[in-house]
Amino acid sequence: MTAQILKSKAAVAWAVGEPLSIEIVDVMPPQKGEVRVKMIATGVCHTDAFTLSGDDPEGIFPCILGHEGGGIVESIGEGVTSVQVGDHVIPLYTPECGECKFCKSGKTNLCQKIRETQGKGLMPDGTSRFSKDGQIIYHYMGTSTFSEYTVLPEISLAKVNPDAPLEEVCLLGCGVTTGMGAVMNTAKVEEGATVAIFGMGGIGLSAVIGATMAKASRIIVIDINESKFELAGKLGATDFINPKDYDKPIQDVIVKLTDGGVDYSFECIGNVNVMRSALECCHKGWGESVVIGVAGAGQEISTRPFQLVTGRVWKGSAFGGVKGRSELPEYVERYLAGEFKLSDFITHTMSLEQVNDAFDLMHQGKSIRTVIHFDK
Amino acid sequence: MTAQILKSKAAVAWAVGEPLSIEIVDVMPPQKGEVRVKMIATGVCHTDAFTLSGDDPEGIFPCILGHEGGGIVESIGEGVTSVQVGDHVIPLYTPECGECKFCKSGKTNLCQKIRETQGKGLMPDGTSRFSKDGQIIYHYMGTSTFSEYTVLPEISLAKVNPDAPLEEVCLLGCGVTTGMGAVMNTAKVEEGATVAIFGMGGIGLSAVIGATMAKASRIIVIDINESKFELAGKLGATDFINPKDYDKPIQDVIVKLTDGGVDYSFECIGNVNVMRSALECCHKGWGESVVIGVAGAGQEISTRPFQLVTGRVWKGSAFGGVKGRSELPEYVERYLAGEFKLSDFITHTMSLEQVNDAFDLMHQGKSIRTVIHFDK
Repeated sequence: MTAQILKSKAAVAWAVGEPLSIEIVDVMPPQKGEVRVKMIATGVCHTDAFTLSGDDPEGIFPCILGHEGGGIVESIGEGVTSVQVGDHVIPLYTPECGECKFCKSGKTNLCQKIRETQGKGLMPDGTSRFSKDGQIIYHYMGTSTFSEYTVLPEISLAKVNPDAPLEEVCLLGCGVTTGMGAVMNTAKVEEGATVAIFGMGGIGLSAVIGATMAKASRIIVIDINESKFELAGKLGATDFINPKDYDKPIQDVIVKLTDGGVDYSFECIGNVNVMRSALECCHKGWGESVVIGVAGAGQEISTRPFQLVTGRVWKGSAFGGVKGRSELPEYVERYLAGEFKLSDFITHTMSLEQVNDAFDLMHQGKSIRTVIHFDK
Repeated sequence: MTAQILKSKAAVAWAVGEPLSIEIVDVMPPQKGEVRVKMIATGVCHTDAFTLSGDDPEGIFPCILGHEGGGIVESIGEGVTSVQVGDHVIPLYTPECGECKFCKSGKTNLCQKIRETQGKGLMPDGTSRFSKDGQIIYHYMGTSTFSEYTVLPEISLAKVNPDAPLEEVCLLGCGVTTGMGAVMNTAKVEEGATVAIFGMGGIGLSAVIGATMAKASRIIVIDINESKFELAGKLGATDFINPKDYDKPIQDVIVKLTDGGVDYSFECIGNVNVMRSALECCHKGWGESVVIGVAGAGQEISTRPFQLVTGRVWKGSAFGGVKGRSELPEYVERYLAGEFKLSDFITHTMSLEQVNDAFDLMHQGKSIRTVIHFDK
């Protein structure tokens, strides 16, 4: 059986700043090394909004946004061997080819095999699988999960345990893994460590889960939106700080509170001033700060070099340092084993038609995650 | 026998920017927990010049500079047990008490036991052991090696093998250990790694030795003073770059030269712009940059956070991350075993009376290290 062009319902971003438009688009069959996936559910993430806003220098329109999905393989292209029709998969915006210099290094999850075409909204062969009335529509982050059907390179799919509800584990496709992985994988927080987490959005809350799983002794969360603190506390946070309650720099407050600073800190907002605070609230001699948030184009971080010379470490993390194909399935297993819950994150579920409402809730700080169910 | 006040020849820094003045000063006997050391030799380091220039916010005058010495214990104070009269010692500006939070952490060499008084030019009891005609003269970095006799806390002395010539291993009291330690201890450069080292002063050249000992596959050195390249090459450097030969940012040159960047880089100058270059010449995904140089007061480093999010690590190192009392003696043993040479660094030897000439040579970039011999 040869796969055919499929008609697919999709939320199309026609131009910067415009609401997404629900359209019926054409989705080409998967080509060599590619897989077509029927999406079951997808989260709506700040990064989608970031690109839609026009601040993302790689943003290209029209495109189909979405990168936090869960789906089932509908058809496979020539040469695809690692997944079969019917497999449950999580799309990966960071692929894992296993062959490039980056994959072979063993030191990073940042596979570069298809980086160039992915950044241009195209499949590895330089073309798109999406169109509407003959007009090309670009891919986004190599995933485009805001479409009932989407096409991905085989190396951009993690095959996961089919027992896991895709409506929940779709969140492991981005935010939750990013936050948990930054704590457990990038920083390798050890039992008894003290931790500060800036920003209680989905990623920050996931970092709280990671710190709780790592048995950190103290988990200090910082946000100007105190409504986030209840869930943070439920997930394991021990101290709650609203910077608006203090006149002095928040790093000074935290250093004093912790007798010298925390062992690890995480910036989960994308604010360069907060990144500095996160570094400077770390303990002299060994404190490590991990930048997770994505700042606007051209913005810079700064500090006095003395902060580093006296032993602090400044690093960053993308997708929690997790290698998608080889390591993400294990996160799904840990979820199934009950080591952490995802339902706490899902404050809203909606149909694809309501996707603009999901963006509104996010901008208003009223949702942690909205999950779109394609069967709604 | 009770120790008496000793008359000691010393180079006194009476005020910012003035030449050092050779004086006969009074040196008090060592008090409880203190040791009086007869200096045999001392290196002259950029940090001494930095403080003399007035740029060091902790500089306090009049003082006796010098922190890179080798000497012999002349007398000990009450309760001193770890060294005896006649022991060969290297003064430590970073002590190792073994008891403070920092020493106990196992994660840092930055013992804080006497940080506060040391920063004020005083011994731990809050007083000075130096005076001239009744006027107090302050200690410097807890070491003041530009004096024939100096007094230090017991925790600020590394006892070393007496077979080692103090006229050479004095350099392990600062620059050489700082550079070698940053490579071997802070960055933990592994065999086959690629390395970029910015600034071919004593610390940069020592970093070259460290990289050679670590069996780095490629050691790229960067300096605008090409006269330094010959010795760098002799010590193991493989590539030599003068930024003045290029129109584009030097990090771009290095990234291109190394097919993506180096695995490790080291800033050995104290220039915040070079610190940025050093970070940005590192390989995406895993490159680590170590700040060793000390920048002027108030200066800041900056970069785009994307540099960190995509896997680069920014850290720093003081005294090469080496714990002075427990680890420095091993460096002396490795020197005695012939693993590295110190004579290459010693371009000049002088008497204490010529100390201002040593500063001049350093400012002119004509010396790597001048070593002052007290018996000259």
